[in-house]
Amino acid sequence: MKLALGLDFGTESVRAVLVDLRGREHASAVAKYVHGQITETLRGAKKKLPQHYALQHPGDWIESAAKATRAALRQAEAGAEDVLGIGVGFTSCTMLPTKRDGTPLCLLKEFAAEPLAWPKLWKHHGAQAQTDRINAVARQRGESFLARYGGIIGLEWFFPKMLETLELAPRAYDAAEVWLEAGDWFVWQLVGGAAETLPRSTCQAGYKGMWSASDGYPSEDFLRAVHPKFARVVKDKMPGRLIAPGVAAGGLTAALSKKLGLREGTPVSAAIIDAHAGVPGAGAAEPGTLVMVLGTSSCHMLNSEVERSVPGVAGVVKDGILPGFFGYETGQAAVGDAFDWLRKLTGQRDFTALAGEAAALPPGAEGVRCVDWFNGCRTPLMDGSLHGAFTGLALHHRPAHLYRALLEASAFGVRWIVELLRDGGVPVTKFVATGGLPHHNPLVVQVYADVLGETITVHPSKQGSALGAAILGALAAGAFGSPRDAIRAMATPERGTAPVFKPSRAHRTTYTALYREYRRLGEFFATPS
Amino acid sequence: MKLALGLDFGTESVRAVLVDLRGREHASAVAKYVHGQITETLRGAKKKLPQHYALQHPGDWIESAAKATRAALRQAEAGAEDVLGIGVGFTSCTMLPTKRDGTPLCLLKEFAAEPLAWPKLWKHHGAQAQTDRINAVARQRGESFLARYGGIIGLEWFFPKMLETLELAPRAYDAAEVWLEAGDWFVWQLVGGAAETLPRSTCQAGYKGMWSASDGYPSEDFLRAVHPKFARVVKDKMPGRLIAPGVAAGGLTAALSKKLGLREGTPVSAAIIDAHAGVPGAGAAEPGTLVMVLGTSSCHMLNSEVERSVPGVAGVVKDGILPGFFGYETGQAAVGDAFDWLRKLTGQRDFTALAGEAAALPPGAEGVRCVDWFNGCRTPLMDGSLHGAFTGLALHHRPAHLYRALLEASAFGVRWIVELLRDGGVPVTKFVATGGLPHHNPLVVQVYADVLGETITVHPSKQGSALGAAILGALAAGAFGSPRDAIRAMATPERGTAPVFKPSRAHRTTYTALYREYRRLGEFFATPS
Repeated sequence: MKLALGLDFGTESVRAVLVDLRGREHASAVAKYVHGQITETLRGAKKKLPQHYALQHPGDWIESAAKATRAALRQAEAGAEDVLGIGVGFTSCTMLPTKRDGTPLCLLKEFAAEPLAWPKLWKHHGAQAQTDRINAVARQRGESFLARYGGIIGLEWFFPKMLETLELAPRAYDAAEVWLEAGDWFVWQLVGGAAETLPRSTCQAGYKGMWSASDGYPSEDFLRAVHPKFARVVKDKMPGRLIAPGVAAGGLTAALSKKLGLREGTPVSAAIIDAHAGVPGAGAAEPGTLVMVLGTSSCHMLNSEVERSVPGVAGVVKDGILPGFFGYETGQAAVGDAFDWLRKLTGQRDFTALAGEAAALPPGAEGVRCVDWFNGCRTPLMDGSLHGAFTGLALHHRPAHLYRALLEASAFGVRWIVELLRDGGVPVTKFVATGGLPHHNPLVVQVYADVLGETITVHPSKQGSALGAAILGALAAGAFGSPRDAIRAMATPERGTAPVFKPSRAHRTTYTALYREYRRLGEFFATPS
Repeated sequence: MKLALGLDFGTESVRAVLVDLRGREHASAVAKYVHGQITETLRGAKKKLPQHYALQHPGDWIESAAKATRAALRQAEAGAEDVLGIGVGFTSCTMLPTKRDGTPLCLLKEFAAEPLAWPKLWKHHGAQAQTDRINAVARQRGESFLARYGGIIGLEWFFPKMLETLELAPRAYDAAEVWLEAGDWFVWQLVGGAAETLPRSTCQAGYKGMWSASDGYPSEDFLRAVHPKFARVVKDKMPGRLIAPGVAAGGLTAALSKKLGLREGTPVSAAIIDAHAGVPGAGAAEPGTLVMVLGTSSCHMLNSEVERSVPGVAGVVKDGILPGFFGYETGQAAVGDAFDWLRKLTGQRDFTALAGEAAALPPGAEGVRCVDWFNGCRTPLMDGSLHGAFTGLALHHRPAHLYRALLEASAFGVRWIVELLRDGGVPVTKFVATGGLPHHNPLVVQVYADVLGETITVHPSKQGSALGAAILGALAAGAFGSPRDAIRAMATPERGTAPVFKPSRAHRTTYTALYREYRRLGEFFATPS
């Protein structure tokens, strides 16, 4: 057997898939993180974490990856020698400080009680003030990197999160010798080596680290203007070499091969952002296809032949997703997370009743309107401090009315993004949904199709990001001549296996009017009082 | 024993209290209406009622009153001869069409399936278009009655509800020989007599029927301008004589005395709106005391020595609550109803967890804001078509956050009313809370006190409206020389029995800022898009 291992690190768990070179999945196993999301208190501590904090335990990543990989090998009845290469998708920007030998700062006794020495999960929203300052200084100085990110840097990104620790936990900042993305840290653990050569992904760096192939990271002058102590952060605390996803970062160390049950020396690809892994995973080898990775949050990505600066579009990175194209990244901060929050808020055990009732309601949820910014607004406003709302509420409304309104609001958010891209001159011609959500929540895909007025194909792989990671693993192993060949071979759905959602013509006018209302509500909530 | 019987007809049930002439309660019994609120389908019908419909069954009122009265007599160990007089408080405008002999139209086989032949509950919101037309025509013609109601007629009032049936169920309208308030119908059933002399309460007529002692009902010319067929509705379909609450409408008939277990000929007072009965019931014999009757909806009433036209104040009626004063009526359309809706929406069994958690949250509910118009806005906007909202929502918010925001929004609604009255030159010097809510929900009273910055006394009678009705029964029986004497004798709380809620000074500034936000949100939601 010739198999590629794809590891997909999500918010709550990691998934390991084993896929052969024709794209057939031989195994898929999930292992939860023991510590999950750390949002209330640190282990053994009594003090409650501030609101909006979301941390993780780095040990969880190694232990869960080992557990999932071993389970996948058993499931596939495969041995260590059957695995050609390893690809790693990871949430981003999930990041951490370490010592030069890779030891996470939070695992040192001295810093165990310091929340800002722990890995910050992508959704950690503690760096609002720092983000505001970075944006203000960048605008003032006319920094050219701003244009690549729609004119604004996000609350969840790498530099704001470093600066947060610098300002709020200076002792931890001083002790940090290396700051890096969690995905890069994991690959570094797999392949070993000195800090100077640790493999940093061009994907994570380009989309979350303000890095570009032509300009590198932000300049020392800029960083000094942000904070004097921040000036040399790139030079002093960000060692390593930049490597594109699909390129081998090295071979598996003896220690980790033992832990994972794999062969020593197995090639490991540089990491990729989990959502971005969904683009190859969804079989999108051509430009103009919007790949909507719907999960806890959503990431909508597009490869294009044109480079355009679109206001509010978070990242345009050359070769950022696939070589030869400009990669556009947009996103929504709360999707599955918001659905689940509403489910819990309304005291529902699962989605069965909610979805059944919501599907039967007419467009517009009998008057209930929603703005879906329950974790801020990512694209296009890039403002994590914004909040969500339900309006138009009356005593006859039930949980399903709110649920339908939320699905519609989520769809209006996508429509806004598509309009921005098209208005900005970036063609969007096809729509593919992937990620966990479309498979267990077909209603959301139908509402998206109706609201967009476009046909949406759901990629049949239930683990698009994991499949994408496996494709990168195969590439790192040299199994294909080009990324395009790999994607076509491993991720083209078999005829008839991809569910297709066609838009309802009957609802087109209604949804256009409701979309205008959504924009009007959003404008009000985005305007400071 | 000398006892007065107070009957208080609420939305779901009737309460009977027996009170002696020093205000001591000897019995209190509740009987639910078998048919409750009819909001889904009529008996035996399959067709769903339109949204916003709320009907009742007239038989329920008689049967439940008999059951509750008999239970109260047993509880008090009293006989028919012990009851001096009967007072009747009733929700309003709850109204119905009947034949000239008092038979409700809906009890005729021919009209049983016609929803608009049934009694419409106060909260029935089917007459929006009719209300809009009445208001438009009144404004156009410069009708003087408008000023008495803050410039606008409400969706829940008597004439819009008649016009609704005229336009949507003309056959039922034609067959209706008498249109009247449910409270008046019930008193008519008790005392008998011809339609020409049926007792109509000046309270109901003044507050919900556009009637005043000086001008009577709206003119034929006005009504013709609203709808040609409506011109003679007062002359042809509204027979009867107008009688003030506390004045005897007649004596109990033989048939009804048998049914209720009372003495034939027992004096019966003209009806009063349930909320207005709360004013005497709360011991408020003096001007300047705002009596807040908090229940399913809320009614805030005030007797004043000055007559002022205050924009948005629903009714200023001379002698409307107590003789010698101008009675001001204001209200909030959804209070206990909204709390209960939120409880159900969030899947909570009862209020225990919600209230405990909400009490521990700081003012402002950690960012959640609410506009409490879940059944429209009564005072001051008088617009039943408005809706409620929750804003500022984020994924860390729990049901208790929404509950606290709702309590605060409800308090801001009261603050708005008090500001309007004071700004309009009507002194408001004391605050008394009564109705069912303050006794089982002390948190709401504390939040009101904090938001108003005023001390609120809760009247210890848990049945303020029922006690007020009993006082009117005693008055009808001639047991006191004046309403003021009766109120002082029967409704002054014993020293130390009235819980007092003092405002927190620490929260004053915060609540003033939050109140401004509430007004800003309200302004946005009240502005057509």
